[in-house]
Amino acid sequence: MAKQIYKQVLSSLIFLSVLLYQSNTVSSFRKSLDLAKPCKRFVFHLHNVAYDGDNTVNATSAAIVNPIGLGDFNFGKFIIMDNPVTMDENYLSKPVARVQGFFFYHGKSKYDTWLSWSVVFNSTQQKGTLNIMGENPFMEPTRDLPVVGGTGDFIMTRGIATFTTDLVEGNKYFRIKMDIKLYECYY
Amino acid sequence: MAKQIYKQVLSSLIFLSVLLYQSNTVSSFRKSLDLAKPCKRFVFHLHNVAYDGDNTVNATSAAIVNPIGLGDFNFGKFIIMDNPVTMDENYLSKPVARVQGFFFYHGKSKYDTWLSWSVVFNSTQQKGTLNIMGENPFMEPTRDLPVVGGTGDFIMTRGIATFTTDLVEGNKYFRIKMDIKLYECYY
Amino acid sequence: MAKQIYKQVLSSLIFLSVLLYQSNTVSSFRKSLDLAKPCKRFVFHLHNVAYDGDNTVNATSAAIVNPIGLGDFNFGKFIIMDNPVTMDENYLSKPVARVQGFFFYHGKSKYDTWLSWSVVFNSTQQKGTLNIMGENPFMEPTRDLPVVGGTGDFIMTRGIATFTTDLVEGNKYFRIKMDIKLYECYY
Repeated sequence: MAKQIYKQVLSSLIFLSVLLYQSNTVSSFRKSLDLAKPCKRFVFHLHNVAYDGDNTVNATSAAIVNPIGLGDFNFGKFIIMDNPVTMDENYLSKPVARVQGFFFYHGKSKYDTWLSWSVVFNSTQQKGTLNIMGENPFMEPTRDLPVVGGTGDFIMTRGIATFTTDLVEGNKYFRIKMDIKLYECYY
Repeated sequence: MAKQIYKQVLSSLIFLSVLLYQSNTVSSFRKSLDLAKPCKRFVFHLHNVAYDGDNTVNATSAAIVNPIGLGDFNFGKFIIMDNPVTMDENYLSKPVARVQGFFFYHGKSKYDTWLSWSVVFNSTQQKGTLNIMGENPFMEPTRDLPVVGGTGDFIMTRGIATFTTDLVEGNKYFRIKMDIKLYECYY
Repeated sequence: MAKQIYKQVLSSLIFLSVLLYQSNTVSSFRKSLDLAKPCKRFVFHLHNVAYDGDNTVNATSAAIVNPIGLGDFNFGKFIIMDNPVTMDENYLSKPVARVQGFFFYHGKSKYDTWLSWSVVFNSTQQKGTLNIMGENPFMEPTRDLPVVGGTGDFIMTRGIATFTTDLVEGNKYFRIKMDIKLYECYY
């Protein structure tokens, strides 16, 4: 009887060990992800003040290439930015991070942009960067962009950034609410 | 005898538990990947119609910076695109996705490009984006590029995109076969 | 007695199986990472020779957009590169890889850059690419950038690249020490 139990248990353990070993030699990887439970989450507001040739002190971004004239939606306009990020919607609040990177317009028959941004934290609470990139159809009320990597407190992180356009004031100023949900945290 | 079995089994279980626990505190991560078994795979064709100043209706891409004259291989030419993607090779077939992003030429003594593209799906079958980026030596018959992230049905996906140039018609048109193999799927 | 052991062992096994199963349906992912133990590591040196209009043979990079005049720190200067990488600091040593991609200046009141680079290996030892991207505050003695993906021997790799500026010779030449630490290896 005891021998029989021993055998059964042993075979179970071998089976489990094989399972564990296999998890190190997977052919590919399919997991379901509970989007409601990120390992980290931030909500904050990005402020963009466009350079108009006359506002050097306040400007936080500037076009380095102008629209090329393909359609009426700024196709080809390429903007470099170094924008402050605040916890509330007030442009004058103390920045908690900066967003550095670029975006450009690529829509021929509607406004549409593509971007690649680093969110740079440098406070006592958070140090490090995370990178957001991809298609940003900013005329949509909200849109998701992938978070593809990070450094420091966000080393190798991944997740989703949901953008909402808070406010647009002509070509001068826009504000974006960034809801960043990380699902891989290594720190 | 029973006691001895109990001890052996217990130590095995503890060992397994430690293994499991360690898998949550890994120092680094080394897996072998069976490339023949992606969790998702797509094969389709991208169509690029270059803007020549006179084809506003048909153009799907346009240079925003022209070659700077370093060598004879378009060094410095920077192209923004919003290209249709079809299941077959026919440019007139119904698009199943769009590819939005940019590429540029960086070869001084041969043709060579670098790109960053979002594949944007918006159909009843698939909703979401995935991002491909990196070196694209397009004079090679095929080349691999990394898939570094995604959203929607492709949330946090990763994998490899293998590009083959189907057809090039001077500076006017090119078609690329994109074979996208995903090895991390979260949906 | 034996029956009791059997029950205890069985429940332990069920518990372990549940743990294993759960690891396939995680809500999110939090691991601690031992930074001292990458699965792969490379240290090498990148050489950048800027095109000045007169050094076609030696140039490895060139500005495709010039500074736009916002501040005194090259804001808007956009550089495309195809740079050799060597094991030692000698520019004339045999390259072990090339770095292809771009960087641009985005600082209004200090020097600051943002980059996206592919490290391309093509030797008997290593074949494949890895991609580094993000904020590069090059006036800092060292800075970390994320490695977000790769191909070939570096398929789907992730990690951190630590950059140190070895040497700057005016606008003509700079050399960067790249210490690349990978924490996910699939090959």
